[in-house]
Amino acid sequence: MKKLINTADSVVDDALNGMAAAHPSLRVRDRVVYRAEGPRPGKVGLVSGGGSGHEPLHAGFVGYGMLDAACPGEVFTSPVPDQIIDATRAVDGGAGVLHIVKNYTGDVLNFEMAAELIEDVEVASVLVDDDVAVQDSLYTAGRRGTGATVFVEKLAGALAEQGAPLAQLAAVAGEVDERSRSFGIALTSCTTPHAGKPTFDLPETDVELGIGIHGEPGRARVPMVSARELAAIAMEAIHGDLPLRGDLLVMVNGMGGTPLMELYVVFAEVAAFVRGKGARVSRSLVGNYVTSLDMQGFSVSICLLDDVLTRLWDAPVETPGLRWGR
Amino acid sequence: MKKLINTADSVVDDALNGMAAAHPSLRVRDRVVYRAEGPRPGKVGLVSGGGSGHEPLHAGFVGYGMLDAACPGEVFTSPVPDQIIDATRAVDGGAGVLHIVKNYTGDVLNFEMAAELIEDVEVASVLVDDDVAVQDSLYTAGRRGTGATVFVEKLAGALAEQGAPLAQLAAVAGEVDERSRSFGIALTSCTTPHAGKPTFDLPETDVELGIGIHGEPGRARVPMVSARELAAIAMEAIHGDLPLRGDLLVMVNGMGGTPLMELYVVFAEVAAFVRGKGARVSRSLVGNYVTSLDMQGFSVSICLLDDVLTRLWDAPVETPGLRWGR
Repeated sequence: MKKLINTADSVVDDALNGMAAAHPSLRVRDRVVYRAEGPRPGKVGLVSGGGSGHEPLHAGFVGYGMLDAACPGEVFTSPVPDQIIDATRAVDGGAGVLHIVKNYTGDVLNFEMAAELIEDVEVASVLVDDDVAVQDSLYTAGRRGTGATVFVEKLAGALAEQGAPLAQLAAVAGEVDERSRSFGIALTSCTTPHAGKPTFDLPETDVELGIGIHGEPGRARVPMVSARELAAIAMEAIHGDLPLRGDLLVMVNGMGGTPLMELYVVFAEVAAFVRGKGARVSRSLVGNYVTSLDMQGFSVSICLLDDVLTRLWDAPVETPGLRWGR
Repeated sequence: MKKLINTADSVVDDALNGMAAAHPSLRVRDRVVYRAEGPRPGKVGLVSGGGSGHEPLHAGFVGYGMLDAACPGEVFTSPVPDQIIDATRAVDGGAGVLHIVKNYTGDVLNFEMAAELIEDVEVASVLVDDDVAVQDSLYTAGRRGTGATVFVEKLAGALAEQGAPLAQLAAVAGEVDERSRSFGIALTSCTTPHAGKPTFDLPETDVELGIGIHGEPGRARVPMVSARELAAIAMEAIHGDLPLRGDLLVMVNGMGGTPLMELYVVFAEVAAFVRGKGARVSRSLVGNYVTSLDMQGFSVSICLLDDVLTRLWDAPVETPGLRWGR
């Protein structure tokens, strides 16, 4: 597989150099991506991170109304504690720092270790584990953290800009995770720069239901069917775990290699499914937000909104990956 | 190749239903995508269109600060005159309508025919032909229109919001095209829903230099090299045609199947090339803006900015595909 890289070893640093060159609002230092303007006194800092290869997650969500810093690891590899410690100290504005951690064993361990080693900053953590597909998958004890990370980062980010204290931020971030569910389907494998060949074999006739964002196995492999049927499989899995009701935030997310036209086809089917259950698509995202390199496929994430969360979703955000309203 | 569709025949309508469901700011009627709020009296209307499969172009650029309507054709197929006529009449606020037309023979003919058939609305046209790769390619007499379409739609769109008259809009849009150049490189073919197999064969070892956005042949097929070398090939082609100088607007555009991480790697190299020529990256975009379905690869587009164009670029825009500042 061809990759637009210089070398597999330099791809993360080369991409971060590109981010810094493209976005004057960001500053990159020692493998951490910060807001250029630095911490705001009295505001809780938000730090997330994880393996590279899921862009725009997380570095693309650094900016007003979302994260204060992101710690990118190597491709599909957790950031190391030193990165997390640097980021946490740098973004503390005196009100403490919230760590937003996707539920992968390496991420959880390294964020925990960093939090323990930092004695001079108050740290709270929220674990994102929204993927209903599998329990105890490769890399994970419990459920994996996927698309709802975008919801947690956006909603907690908006609340942090309003000056909410750390304990409240942690509580709301946890509530967003509890109100959110995701399910992904792969049409093809991803290919990492180091391997240079597909992570797993998937016949031309089949799809993987419940795929993870690193190509981890899902629930089942079945013959390819229509977008309508695939959307129904994903939505039934979500609805069976957390019944759809009321106003929903719905994201149809591309895995990196899927045409936007096809994501809109899926979105139409997801919206029809939601209506069929008597719920309502109140807010939505369609596009590449939590990718798996060049994988073809999609995931659906939903969050049960209330008035407070809807207002936080509508609040201004200015990041390379998500932007509106200011 | 697997496609997230219901049927190949319904893919365009299904995707438009998804756009309408996802974006309350848009209204879809008879295969035209409009701003939901309708035309503003006294403002020139901006209409563009072209084959589907290049999303977010054009429908994703309908909204405040860009287009008033977009006419999507079938996949890689021009819209028909009736669509263009409907769109033109519907967005006229009494100040006339500007057609923004990519230079493909079918698009040019159908927009011309529509303009001739409309006697009750003043229409001007701008032709976008920024691709330096080839002259007189498949589908095109002269140069193809590609990435600079985003620049023309954004900059003319901003000027239209300020109340500029039709003649001035057409002049500035033409100037933007003259100041812009693009060059694309394919790592893989695209696959259309109807064909279900790659449009062209490209060996695993090779890349196509100067690819068109429908998979049309470029200048040459050469062995795959590093991102740095590919970026230099694209930038030398552009610089040889229009020497880089002063402040540049630079877009590194994904063709639909390329990881964002890799596009940032390319952007870093493009920015270094620009600095090496004594010019400056003043504004930038990195991501999927003018795609070719699931093609892997990228294009670079540049525009020589001046103070007026920079202010128009920075003006607020609120579309599904491009959004900032209001």
